[in-house]
Amino acid sequence: MASSFEGATLRARSQPPVYQVKTAEPVVNSTAQRIRDTKYRHVFATHSTSRSSPLSQDAEKSPSFVGFRNLMVLVLIVSNLRLMIENFRKYGVLICIHCHDYKRQDVIYGLLLYLSVPLHLFVAFVIELCAVQQANGALARMQRARDAGDNNTPEAIRKAQKAFNSTWRIIALAHGINATMNLIIATTVVYYYIHHPGIGTLCELHAVIVWLKVCSYAFTNRDLRHALLHPNHAQPLPETYKSCPYPKNINMRNLCYFWWAPTLVYQPVYPRTTTIRWDFVAKRLLEVVGLSIVIWIASAQYAAPLLQNSLDKMFTLDFVSIIERVMKLSTISLFCWLCGFFALFQSFLNALAEVMKFGDREFYGDWWNVSSIRGYWTTWNKPVTNFMRRHVYSPLVGRGVPPALAQIIVFLLSGVLHELLVGVPTHNIIGVAFAGMMFQIPLILLTDTLQKMKGIRGKVAGNMIFWISFCLVGQPLAALLYFFAWQAKYGSVSKQYAESPAMHLFRRR
Amino acid sequence: MASSFEGATLRARSQPPVYQVKTAEPVVNSTAQRIRDTKYRHVFATHSTSRSSPLSQDAEKSPSFVGFRNLMVLVLIVSNLRLMIENFRKYGVLICIHCHDYKRQDVIYGLLLYLSVPLHLFVAFVIELCAVQQANGALARMQRARDAGDNNTPEAIRKAQKAFNSTWRIIALAHGINATMNLIIATTVVYYYIHHPGIGTLCELHAVIVWLKVCSYAFTNRDLRHALLHPNHAQPLPETYKSCPYPKNINMRNLCYFWWAPTLVYQPVYPRTTTIRWDFVAKRLLEVVGLSIVIWIASAQYAAPLLQNSLDKMFTLDFVSIIERVMKLSTISLFCWLCGFFALFQSFLNALAEVMKFGDREFYGDWWNVSSIRGYWTTWNKPVTNFMRRHVYSPLVGRGVPPALAQIIVFLLSGVLHELLVGVPTHNIIGVAFAGMMFQIPLILLTDTLQKMKGIRGKVAGNMIFWISFCLVGQPLAALLYFFAWQAKYGSVSKQYAESPAMHLFRRR
Repeated sequence: MASSFEGATLRARSQPPVYQVKTAEPVVNSTAQRIRDTKYRHVFATHSTSRSSPLSQDAEKSPSFVGFRNLMVLVLIVSNLRLMIENFRKYGVLICIHCHDYKRQDVIYGLLLYLSVPLHLFVAFVIELCAVQQANGALARMQRARDAGDNNTPEAIRKAQKAFNSTWRIIALAHGINATMNLIIATTVVYYYIHHPGIGTLCELHAVIVWLKVCSYAFTNRDLRHALLHPNHAQPLPETYKSCPYPKNINMRNLCYFWWAPTLVYQPVYPRTTTIRWDFVAKRLLEVVGLSIVIWIASAQYAAPLLQNSLDKMFTLDFVSIIERVMKLSTISLFCWLCGFFALFQSFLNALAEVMKFGDREFYGDWWNVSSIRGYWTTWNKPVTNFMRRHVYSPLVGRGVPPALAQIIVFLLSGVLHELLVGVPTHNIIGVAFAGMMFQIPLILLTDTLQKMKGIRGKVAGNMIFWISFCLVGQPLAALLYFFAWQAKYGSVSKQYAESPAMHLFRRR
Repeated sequence: MASSFEGATLRARSQPPVYQVKTAEPVVNSTAQRIRDTKYRHVFATHSTSRSSPLSQDAEKSPSFVGFRNLMVLVLIVSNLRLMIENFRKYGVLICIHCHDYKRQDVIYGLLLYLSVPLHLFVAFVIELCAVQQANGALARMQRARDAGDNNTPEAIRKAQKAFNSTWRIIALAHGINATMNLIIATTVVYYYIHHPGIGTLCELHAVIVWLKVCSYAFTNRDLRHALLHPNHAQPLPETYKSCPYPKNINMRNLCYFWWAPTLVYQPVYPRTTTIRWDFVAKRLLEVVGLSIVIWIASAQYAAPLLQNSLDKMFTLDFVSIIERVMKLSTISLFCWLCGFFALFQSFLNALAEVMKFGDREFYGDWWNVSSIRGYWTTWNKPVTNFMRRHVYSPLVGRGVPPALAQIIVFLLSGVLHELLVGVPTHNIIGVAFAGMMFQIPLILLTDTLQKMKGIRGKVAGNMIFWISFCLVGQPLAALLYFFAWQAKYGSVSKQYAESPAMHLFRRR
């Protein structure tokens, strides 16, 4: 029987199959070809080869997970939409255009600061004009000494240089006083006379930016002057500077360009674009406006009640609740931060650069992919990074300071600036922003070793540590602490909890 | 002046620079080389070329966003951890091992069903044994007719075939009755005698699996028999079947293998592995246990209170709240579904396949990446897809049914099975599962056109539509509806809302 079956199948394969209509099956509207193809469909060998499951470790290649990325986007949107419904049911609409309260005094002092702070740039300009005079005089003396004869030339030149060096310090002192006065005046006014933290932050930020610009202007022109006087002692100046050699660049037009250019490092010459694309500017400014509104809504409708109802947990030092609040706050603060980052570094600075025909638009790198905390701090804010590298880190290392120490000094300075920007406008110099910056140093050590240790896993772990420290522990906790400090000093809630354990921690002032 | 400056810089570049120590600057521990290199660091050209911002449209290539993927993972973890804290504060620990209530009757009936359902496979085996007898008889008659002489051979063969065809239908009828009885008995017992929906679902699932196996066994052997009797009429049988030709495969050992093999389609021969890796089996079983515990905790601690406190919203038809509940439920139901999918299709079926030395482990494809709903239904559950394709779709198309209609028939059958699996154990045949399956047909049409229309965007949009329909509208809404129907019929809450508008909708029975 079996042999006859095998013979039959073998025959079927060796001969071309001859089709015959079988009346037992209902054949409607079908061709002979189709029936022949599907005659044995029930016996089709579905399991014809050994295969492994896609998610098995046996699988030759691991499958793509791009669908799960889409799912994550979706789940994030849905779960936050849900929280928005919950928020709306609980609080209704909290956004209110007319009920923003700020004092008249705040606006007046803010405007005064806005107008007076740039004056320090012009003071720096005047100092530099004097320095040019001085340099020209020194150069003329050196020329005269050189012309006098070969015999006493080196001696005369050295004497002229020494005479110049004494005034060199006077110029440096003048710059130092001018720059420091800028910071002191602005900080004092903001701390004592501007109550509103928003206006205060804007004023302080403006002062810090101008301070950095003044410093860069002074440092760069000092080295340009040095290059003029000691042409043999150092590497050549950058090629691009040739179109505007040293004393020529000390003019009003050049200074005003630096004042408005989207950079903190002074160069006599910048890479420039040829035209202004006004449609580009308009789009970027629309982005700034749109994102500002989004941030305002997010903070008024979602962050404000969150901060408000975390106060009693803070006062009673209920740590599980504080952690829960920080977790909830982290999403909204992260969202605001990302919107703010895009609005400032992408939209606003690009618009400004376009108007100024400023060519180098690298205001940030792809910091979101960093695998070490160091990577984050060197890519997220390129204007400040460029300043710190050119005017603090490199000169320190050049003077023999070990690179690690130079880095710590950079972070110290950065910590002071962060504290100025957050602590002064909130009238609570509690050192959290400074401590946060200092905390970056051990984190850098940790993620640097992680980066070296492993392959792709170390990278992902480093990136995760960055995000955790950045958007979980860093931002929301700091926001909570400053908000709490503010409430403890000014808020109405504080009276109710006047004798709480947490209040004692903040009662030093 | 300017010319002398230019001369100086040109000289500096043409001559090798000669270093002189300058006493005005504090030089400590530094070599001449280092100072020369860093002398002009303040004048270093940070902005040397025009560059665009990474996120600009002007940028040559868009940056990687892998960091944001990590961030999404993190935000999802954190926001759900937060919800877990919130849940714990609200409900405490809801997980309880000893307080699970099920009736003694449920367990007894469940066990009886578990033992009796496979009997239908053996009945099918007996029917097939009879069919083999019949086929052998027909083959012998055909052989005898062929041996009798060349003159009347075709006539005699055709007569023998006709005689066989009459009994052919009797065999089909016997199989039909056997298979249908299986489903009817199991469904009746589950619906009327097993109260507990968990035990009921397991019993019904087991019955459906065995039903599909019985059908496949009958269909495949019918075609094998057909191939034996009509060797000239059709394409050759698959190569792999040659090692076990038709009547040989009708034996107890072969049947028992099919009974336990992780597939729903019968083949006389399957691709096999050579050894059993017991450590592999152990790992997979540990995964099953671990994931089952995780699913149990998730549903007891998170899904149960969610369902419970969405009841009053359902009763009062508060649609915004229902949407909010569905959104909250979607995350947890998705999580449970993914865990369940992995536990069943990856861990359990792989463990079973390893024990059975079953070679073809393709129990699922990468359905999470699908860009059309059709793709999902053909990849997420390959055992059922294989069954439907081999035993429903292909035979229908082969008999001249248009492919679109054949697909609709497949979905109809699938809808009935889904309703059996969900509606019967919950004692509420409300048709939601069936309607859900039917709703897939327009979705398939929509995503198919999307897939054709555009490039990568159409793919992402299709994937998003899949996820939304799957994990937002589909699963949690269905779970909510069946839970509500259950509560309306048995729950204590229903009395309180006896006259609610929603109750009338569910009061048909």
